Amino acid sequence: MAVYTVVPSEALDDFIKSYDVGTVRSFKGIAEGVSNSNFMIETNQAHFILTLYEHRINFAELPFFISLMEYLADAHLPVPRPIRDRHGEALKMLEGRHACLIEFLPGVSVSHPTVDQTQAVGRALANLHLAAQSFPQKRSNSLGPDWWRQISAQLESELDSIAPGLQKTVAAAVARLDQWPDDLPKGIIHADLFPDNVLMIDSKVTGLIDFYFACTDYFIYDLAVLHAAWAFLPDGSAPLSGHQEALFAGYQSVRPLSNAEKQAFPLMAQGAALRFLLSRAQDWLAPHADNALVQRKDPLPFVRRLNHYASHGAALV
Amino acid sequence: MAVYTVVPSEALDDFIKSYDVGTVRSFKGIAEGVSNSNFMIETNQAHFILTLYEHRINFAELPFFISLMEYLADAHLPVPRPIRDRHGEALKMLEGRHACLIEFLPGVSVSHPTVDQTQAVGRALANLHLAAQSFPQKRSNSLGPDWWRQISAQLESELDSIAPGLQKTVAAAVARLDQWPDDLPKGIIHADLFPDNVLMIDSKVTGLIDFYFACTDYFIYDLAVLHAAWAFLPDGSAPLSGHQEALFAGYQSVRPLSNAEKQAFPLMAQGAALRFLLSRAQDWLAPHADNALVQRKDPLPFVRRLNHYASHGAALV
Repeated sequence: MAVYTVVPSEALDDFIKSYDVGTVRSFKGIAEGVSNSNFMIETNQAHFILTLYEHRINFAELPFFISLMEYLADAHLPVPRPIRDRHGEALKMLEGRHACLIEFLPGVSVSHPTVDQTQAVGRALANLHLAAQSFPQKRSNSLGPDWWRQISAQLESELDSIAPGLQKTVAAAVARLDQWPDDLPKGIIHADLFPDNVLMIDSKVTGLIDFYFACTDYFIYDLAVLHAAWAFLPDGSAPLSGHQEALFAGYQSVRPLSNAEKQAFPLMAQGAALRFLLSRAQDWLAPHADNALVQRKDPLPFVRRLNHYASHGAALV
Repeated sequence: MAVYTVVPSEALDDFIKSYDVGTVRSFKGIAEGVSNSNFMIETNQAHFILTLYEHRINFAELPFFISLMEYLADAHLPVPRPIRDRHGEALKMLEGRHACLIEFLPGVSVSHPTVDQTQAVGRALANLHLAAQSFPQKRSNSLGPDWWRQISAQLESELDSIAPGLQKTVAAAVARLDQWPDDLPKGIIHADLFPDNVLMIDSKVTGLIDFYFACTDYFIYDLAVLHAAWAFLPDGSAPLSGHQEALFAGYQSVRPLSNAEKQAFPLMAQGAALRFLLSRAQDWLAPHADNALVQRKDPLPFVRRLNHYASHGAALV
């Protein structure tokens, strides 16, 4: 949670004048995003989020993410629309950073989702999967099976400094995931739809945000990410049974799962748990200067999820 | 710039229900404040700032600051009003922290004030001084002459690790400031009215914020703080002549200075420069855990101001 780049108000005024959005009335850095700086802007016409892209993002991929958000906003999904300037550009530069002015959506990120909220997010994910099917661009999942193999080999015995035996647990999971299927229904997935990336008012989804991990992958993998994110106690100690049923019910009310997808779910869930386990372990073990500002997230809750999915995954669907 | 305390959305909902301000539509941590956590809240009725008080503040003094802000808002100054809950309380608890819900004011903090903006802030300061004259509470300046003596003695030769010769410079300034007068017009002063504590739209002051250094002291000292803050190049290398004239003109258009105040100005300005020099030096030399999140501010621009005021102060008024 940080603002990495200081934007002088005078530079902001000039920047905003390149759009047809009115004049600046208020401008505050907000404590969101670990790979970018975010600001909340009020003009005399509307509210906006301004994102400056910092490290951790491959700038060459920004047009993909921004096109996707615009495509989904056009499809009337609750996705914030990137704003185009007077020359039709959505991706611009400000203070030496790639920058995008984005529609502000109301809603809050819930910390303790209810069953109804979990059902709503299941529906929202299925709507996203269907709406994005006709999106013409593709992006491979840079945090998929190849990355798990590579990063677990790289971290090696360092993993045991996080928790004794973790290297062995991870190696066993990577070996099991060699069974990763290659023929499930796929398309654009969000790949990181945790509660902090969903805005809600009561039990209504008002915003799906932070598309910077979106890629082309199995729909059922995306639902497995949601299971890990919404249907578990945060510490990973146990799944929340009402929540997991609501998640599947919500999703299937829009897009019923095939038998192949249901069968693959336990493996998908282990993959999802491993992906977050490994990215957190990587941050945990290699904090660099920019990360000093970021609160490190404990990998262990995802070790617990991984273990649960490995032993009880078949009973979940 | 940080948010130190995480507030779950569910806890926020309950908290907001204790006020008559509508229901939460949006809630974002904002990157402002070094001694507190701040959030921007939108309800279906209005926008608010929620402040949670962290370290660095004497909690026993919070009622003073909050009463003062309410008093000034009642007097129609552009000061954000603390909101009272359904029981009439303005200072409350949230997530184990003292908390206050505060009116949101539009405007941005300028980075490079223009002459017109500097004149406007001079007027705003004089209006503040006059409006607060009937405020019944007092608070001594905890960062005044006694503190300069104490902290410079405490930092001692460590000061030379910031810049060679700094200990000697500071000791000489403290000795000169033994001439600090004891009979100038006084009242409530802001004591920290830098550009980041002023909200403006174009050249209009729309908000005076962050009253947590406010105290009872000489009006002319407060104007000297403004001189150091608004009428100098940020690096302290030279005063901005158009700006300093505008500052005095703006202030005196509302509250003319007495001859005694004008004569005292060079000493007041050295005191103001020393106060910020020393607080920055203290942070520079003793960063503790909580401060790791805060960008340290360089004391040297205030050494340059101090030197300028010592040698050229008499010519400024």
